[in-house]
Amino acid sequence: MTDLLSTDDRAALLPALGETGWAAVPGKDALRKILKFKNFSEAWGFMSRAALMAEKLNHHPEWKNTYNVVDVTLTTHDVQGLTRLDIDLARAMDRFAGSTEVQRNHGEPVSSLCEARASRKA
Amino acid sequence: MTDLLSTDDRAALLPALGETGWAAVPGKDALRKILKFKNFSEAWGFMSRAALMAEKLNHHPEWKNTYNVVDVTLTTHDVQGLTRLDIDLARAMDRFAGSTEVQRNHGEPVSSLCEARASRKA
Amino acid sequence: MTDLLSTDDRAALLPALGETGWAAVPGKDALRKILKFKNFSEAWGFMSRAALMAEKLNHHPEWKNTYNVVDVTLTTHDVQGLTRLDIDLARAMDRFAGSTEVQRNHGEPVSSLCEARASRKA
Amino acid sequence: MTDLLSTDDRAALLPALGETGWAAVPGKDALRKILKFKNFSEAWGFMSRAALMAEKLNHHPEWKNTYNVVDVTLTTHDVQGLTRLDIDLARAMDRFAGSTEVQRNHGEPVSSLCEARASRKA
Repeated sequence: MTDLLSTDDRAALLPALGETGWAAVPGKDALRKILKFKNFSEAWGFMSRAALMAEKLNHHPEWKNTYNVVDVTLTTHDVQGLTRLDIDLARAMDRFAGSTEVQRNHGEPVSSLCEARASRKA
Repeated sequence: MTDLLSTDDRAALLPALGETGWAAVPGKDALRKILKFKNFSEAWGFMSRAALMAEKLNHHPEWKNTYNVVDVTLTTHDVQGLTRLDIDLARAMDRFAGSTEVQRNHGEPVSSLCEARASRKA
Repeated sequence: MTDLLSTDDRAALLPALGETGWAAVPGKDALRKILKFKNFSEAWGFMSRAALMAEKLNHHPEWKNTYNVVDVTLTTHDVQGLTRLDIDLARAMDRFAGSTEVQRNHGEPVSSLCEARASRKA
Repeated sequence: MTDLLSTDDRAALLPALGETGWAAVPGKDALRKILKFKNFSEAWGFMSRAALMAEKLNHHPEWKNTYNVVDVTLTTHDVQGLTRLDIDLARAMDRFAGSTEVQRNHGEPVSSLCEARASRKA
């Protein structure tokens, strides 16, 4: 069984993920990253590669997709917190996402391009 | 541009979708269905077919996936409500999902198999 | 490293795969199955699940897709022949394909539905 | 129905595709390109985006995948030759493939990385 990350592991591993846009989730030992691709096709290409990695690691994300946006939360349900599996999946997702735009402010509502388009028209 | 469904359209089209497990979203003119597959592979097979249809219709779902669960919300952002596109996408998703289990009570928290496993152990 | 199947393994494992439509490839220690789905969407749903399994097993098919047809050849390149990995991938593909039509005569040209359609028109 | 490309269309459209690695198929009015990705994950990310485009155009490739290699042939079966749909799908595939390596000599056997690995060991 996978162990929760130790305090030392966290200090060693989490800052680099913070730099690529992963952030803590309030009230939960989990990581979240909000990726904004150019369109659904790009978002789906990313998700298709991430799905292969998730199945390979036997560790799966909670993720929400709306058109070009993929909003990912990683945690290990068995131990109710972060483990090495979350680090590995987060790093793989960063490789697959390349230089895609990241929404760093998680307090803001996450609006996809189609919602943005609709509100400009309103 | 796609028009909002008329009252007559709603009366004609929505009850059949209600029977397959689509329900209104409180405070929003949208449809929601929570599908529970056997595992991630089955859920991903469904999502892969739904992605093809979404791109073909140029109309995309808001959907959240956690392991075996796919939680779908359909609405048309351009007109902030339900249109014929939502009906078409909902029906296609029903075809792709086959006889998959549906969680009809949307007030209950949606727990995936991995969360269920974790809580049985606790 | 994975070993070639022994003569006993072959006698035990291959007949069941023969019944679901896998057949030997002339001049090569490999298995081939030709699946005919209803359309591209169904074929792609199958391929998406098979891709997850291939990456999980770290063992990948040679496969050709034309619209509704998926023509799969399995062999283990490292040992130039059939291993347990090919059996596992073949069985998983059978589960994902369900009751899809199989073209058992590999001597016949594999014509996809769109080619068949074109020749009926000609 | 889609028309065969005229001689003028061919002169205007095909040379640019030739530069990105598409080439004529002997004895057939079709285009072929052999893409060599770094691994299966990259190849599958490409195929997943190309599948969306194929379904959107209602025009599908003949393609063969072996691990990192995707060998694509495009033609329009209804008219037994090249049409505007083939040009559109070829260009979309070029966008999705980015700077991936291309095998320009179609006379050579197409060996995937796993076959290459196996022959180095032999």
